[in-house]
Amino acid sequence: MRKIKLLIEYDGTAYHGWQIQNDTTTVQGILEDSVQRITGAPSSVHGASRTDAGVHALGQVAVFRTESRLDDGTIKKALNAVLPQDIRILEAAEVDDLFHPRDAAVKKSYFYIIVNQRVPSAFLFRYTWAVPQQLDLNAMAEASKALRGRHDFAAFMGAGSDVRDTVREINALNIERLDRVDFMTGCLRGDFIKIWAEANGFLRHMVRNIVGTLVATGRGRIPVDRMTEILQSRDRRLAGQTAPAKGLFLERIVY
Amino acid sequence: MRKIKLLIEYDGTAYHGWQIQNDTTTVQGILEDSVQRITGAPSSVHGASRTDAGVHALGQVAVFRTESRLDDGTIKKALNAVLPQDIRILEAAEVDDLFHPRDAAVKKSYFYIIVNQRVPSAFLFRYTWAVPQQLDLNAMAEASKALRGRHDFAAFMGAGSDVRDTVREINALNIERLDRVDFMTGCLRGDFIKIWAEANGFLRHMVRNIVGTLVATGRGRIPVDRMTEILQSRDRRLAGQTAPAKGLFLERIVY
Repeated sequence: MRKIKLLIEYDGTAYHGWQIQNDTTTVQGILEDSVQRITGAPSSVHGASRTDAGVHALGQVAVFRTESRLDDGTIKKALNAVLPQDIRILEAAEVDDLFHPRDAAVKKSYFYIIVNQRVPSAFLFRYTWAVPQQLDLNAMAEASKALRGRHDFAAFMGAGSDVRDTVREINALNIERLDRVDFMTGCLRGDFIKIWAEANGFLRHMVRNIVGTLVATGRGRIPVDRMTEILQSRDRRLAGQTAPAKGLFLERIVY
Repeated sequence: MRKIKLLIEYDGTAYHGWQIQNDTTTVQGILEDSVQRITGAPSSVHGASRTDAGVHALGQVAVFRTESRLDDGTIKKALNAVLPQDIRILEAAEVDDLFHPRDAAVKKSYFYIIVNQRVPSAFLFRYTWAVPQQLDLNAMAEASKALRGRHDFAAFMGAGSDVRDTVREINALNIERLDRVDFMTGCLRGDFIKIWAEANGFLRHMVRNIVGTLVATGRGRIPVDRMTEILQSRDRRLAGQTAPAKGLFLERIVY
């Protein structure tokens, strides 16, 4: 029995998230079907992050066990041949049977894209949150400082999570304006804001709740110096709205 | 009665092209419905280019007549409020009643995007043609020279067109490799090839047939020096395949 590790990119638009569910299309479900198609045997696919419905991934990591003799390169090609176009296998490699993609993760990074202009692009609505109002990036950057480091992030955890230890450590949280985008020169030109976060782990909806709170700060609805108070309150009601799933990308998992 | 000129951006993925048809969703049809919703009266919307099913636009131009007293800025905002997210009005402005978007066009430009890598992006399949084979860009650039200038492009015209004068003048035809894309750093990084063409007008499928022929040249299936012969033959069967619609963008119409 071999254990195969996959590096996976997906556009989450069409999926009800990562985790397999009955009667609905999920990334994990599609992957398990595809593994069965190429190996001829059912196999569970275990992922590192349970991304929500509509969230995208550039670097999801998952594993499955198989008796198949197909080599790594063939597994990658065969999976890409049967998977839908919005899920791509970037790498497939045999790993030690003890490797567990969730438990072994040392840190993870996510980024979030906001399109900050009056008329949002007709092409990027699947991958961005359109915020037409003017945003004060300096205020957002100042407020974000309070979140860096090791804190109890209960105020930024979505309801319905059964996680009990809500302490996480954010190593990096950067906000930058992407003034101009080169691809398809013209159509993707515009004002984009990218919020990038790296931590030892994230709670449910944590990045989206941080983004929603930072945007409220940028709009002047939450004062810059309130971020510490929100964090210390551990009260979800004091933080801002949950930013839409479609602007969020799971970027990388470091082992 | 006022005449309003619109500058329109759209993602063509969900539409059966520009031109209104019964029982199918078209960009023109959606626009006519939307104009009626905001002005309260039916109106025909006339466009400059009849883009095919799946073709995108960054700068389609169209006009409609209306008795409405709404000012230009309000028309733009109101249309964007009722239109689907994949059609955006970039500008709305009153023009002289004699202005005709198709007849008055002096030149048009289109570009075409090829993603030239083994595993195409999970995010750009709607906007690119995935060509995994190695392409010789020098050969493609050399072959493209024969197409510049004033020629009879009958060999590059799709079947079913009723156009009789097949002479057009291509001012510019450039091929460039976009090595790295900044947006969503990581996922859109890759090898993209952009083919950009500007002419006084284009025949049906002309850009897509030129792209298909250039790609065949880049793959070594059509010799570089055969382009002149294909052009002179006026025979569609000698040129390459019609590149898929989804990689094509109507960029700009100059008046």
